Amino acid sequence: MSGVYLDYNATAPIRPEAVEAMTRAFAIGGNPSSVHAAGRSARAIVEHARNEVAALIGGPASTVIFTSGGTEANALAIESAVATGSKRLIVSAIEHDSVLESAKASGVAVEYLPVKADGTADLGWLTARLAAWDAADGRPFVALMLANNETGVIQPVREASEIVRAAEGWLHVDAIQGAGKIITDSRALGADTLVVSAHKLGGPQGVGALTFGPRATMVRRQHGGGQERGRRAGTENVAGIAGFGAAAMASLRDKEIQAAWRDAAAERLKANGALVIGEDAARLPNTLCVAAAGYGAELQVMALDLAGIMVSAGSACSSGKVKASHVLTAMGLDDLASCAIRVSGGWATTEQDWAAFAAAWEQVHSRHAARHRAPAA
Amino acid sequence: MSGVYLDYNATAPIRPEAVEAMTRAFAIGGNPSSVHAAGRSARAIVEHARNEVAALIGGPASTVIFTSGGTEANALAIESAVATGSKRLIVSAIEHDSVLESAKASGVAVEYLPVKADGTADLGWLTARLAAWDAADGRPFVALMLANNETGVIQPVREASEIVRAAEGWLHVDAIQGAGKIITDSRALGADTLVVSAHKLGGPQGVGALTFGPRATMVRRQHGGGQERGRRAGTENVAGIAGFGAAAMASLRDKEIQAAWRDAAAERLKANGALVIGEDAARLPNTLCVAAAGYGAELQVMALDLAGIMVSAGSACSSGKVKASHVLTAMGLDDLASCAIRVSGGWATTEQDWAAFAAAWEQVHSRHAARHRAPAA
Repeated sequence: MSGVYLDYNATAPIRPEAVEAMTRAFAIGGNPSSVHAAGRSARAIVEHARNEVAALIGGPASTVIFTSGGTEANALAIESAVATGSKRLIVSAIEHDSVLESAKASGVAVEYLPVKADGTADLGWLTARLAAWDAADGRPFVALMLANNETGVIQPVREASEIVRAAEGWLHVDAIQGAGKIITDSRALGADTLVVSAHKLGGPQGVGALTFGPRATMVRRQHGGGQERGRRAGTENVAGIAGFGAAAMASLRDKEIQAAWRDAAAERLKANGALVIGEDAARLPNTLCVAAAGYGAELQVMALDLAGIMVSAGSACSSGKVKASHVLTAMGLDDLASCAIRVSGGWATTEQDWAAFAAAWEQVHSRHAARHRAPAA
Repeated sequence: MSGVYLDYNATAPIRPEAVEAMTRAFAIGGNPSSVHAAGRSARAIVEHARNEVAALIGGPASTVIFTSGGTEANALAIESAVATGSKRLIVSAIEHDSVLESAKASGVAVEYLPVKADGTADLGWLTARLAAWDAADGRPFVALMLANNETGVIQPVREASEIVRAAEGWLHVDAIQGAGKIITDSRALGADTLVVSAHKLGGPQGVGALTFGPRATMVRRQHGGGQERGRRAGTENVAGIAGFGAAAMASLRDKEIQAAWRDAAAERLKANGALVIGEDAARLPNTLCVAAAGYGAELQVMALDLAGIMVSAGSACSSGKVKASHVLTAMGLDDLASCAIRVSGGWATTEQDWAAFAAAWEQVHSRHAARHRAPAA
């Protein structure tokens, strides 16, 4: 890939450790359900990776279910909650589409946990809402992500878990953007279900995982063979799982310096009048969400792309569709919701990458400002 | 992998072409939903592979939906049929567990299309059953696989499609074991939905596809982003899809000689009293299902494994669980259902591999026969 890639929150380049693990798995081959030598080797690869992913997210390996990605894992949690008695779901207004849409498709009522101006969930609202919970709605289910994919704002998950626990509810944590960037311990967070995706932390696309605690009962949403202890039918993606495990381990060794490089770039944009979204809250070290009033996000992304800098306008998950970010709208930033870009680094990002972004942005921004300066009357 | 691998129907070793395609995709990176250069490159990889898979299975690329594998694809077809009005499903008694279990889990009634002694579906039964169809059961849905995974017996899908079409029904074809081994043209077969899996033909595990015709309406079973034209949410497994496409192309070039090598091996086993299952029907060129009365399949598999020959006892999809094959039971072979092994070759298999299997089998079989000869009174 030529150019400066600063769109890790969309997908991270695959780590060499992950490619090596996949190459080893390919050389072995085998179906983990086969009893012969190749099958046993494949099984060992999957279980080794399960331990690695468990180490990343702090659950016993026996509660880690591999899936085809974060979307399937989020759906698995939501469908399990509904199947075991939740008749009303509370999802934060800034969840990823895979949570929002899976909740809507679940067939039960959905409510939205609002966020405050700083981008963090309004736990006062949650406390009041659960205090008024109607038992006819079954067990409360609350989805609160670990960190937002667009702003990087880290959510008060541990505090939310105490509120949810007091109401005997089920807390689901989409940790897809947090895992590998900040410490992600499902037990310390008090998550009943927690979900991660390999490709956001340098593993391959097409692999995710869910871990569940003792208060969550998982149901099947894919039927057939007895894979994943009967919890998810289908031949395991052995190489993908191996790559996931290797990437999980590698991500634990990542450098912390990213935030300083990002902040240095942010200062240069701010000097040009840009606004950093979520700056008052704790954020992921790799993510910068920044808005320039009057300069549309799509235009910024395209101009930067021409300059060889790859960033995104909000989430990449809407297939290039231009729409105002629901995350920024939820933060009350309606005016800026279509003017914010997301810049996100990762394991291969350098200080020079961030500086190159800032320099390119200064250039495209000043060109845009020049074109849009009011002409002489 | 050391030893002789003859368990391609469980999973095929990955083809070098697939690894190369994946390696190229890894080098590019990118999320196909991103609008920048890396995203566009990733998108191009996915669409190129979609054309390759469409070429393999004979559907327009626009009707190819990539999934996480055959199990998900089978579930997608069944859930779509139920969501659009089928209230009773007819599935052949020899379908793969992913079809049988997805049908059972669908919430509607399930009936089983019987097979004849030769292992092929009983189309007389199907004709009579559909003639007596109760309109209250909605649109008839019939699942008939292209070729059976255990016996290799090729099913009369084209003939079934005419019967199903006459009843304005939906014919679903699990072509997972057929594709890449025999010509698989979803339109010529008259399939309304047809499913394939990458890893059975030398692509990576964790990728599958479904193609659908004009009489099938697909619903979503994974919600979130707008990927796959809104039909399947979740970041695409770009490298896996690329590997699938490359393997699909390579499988079209496979040699036909496999059947002769298999039959030569089969003759040696038959000379020792073994029975070839499904021999009276057309079979996949790579598959040998063979039973030796009184010699349990699990014992055969283990003895052969010790001799370095990897084969399976029926399907590998039941996680090593010992149970009589539902396929052989459906063929009326109850007595032999626990004594049959499946031997299946593929793209890297040689004549020597089949001969090595036959020689090893002769040895373990004669040892077993010697041990179980009636002792002198």
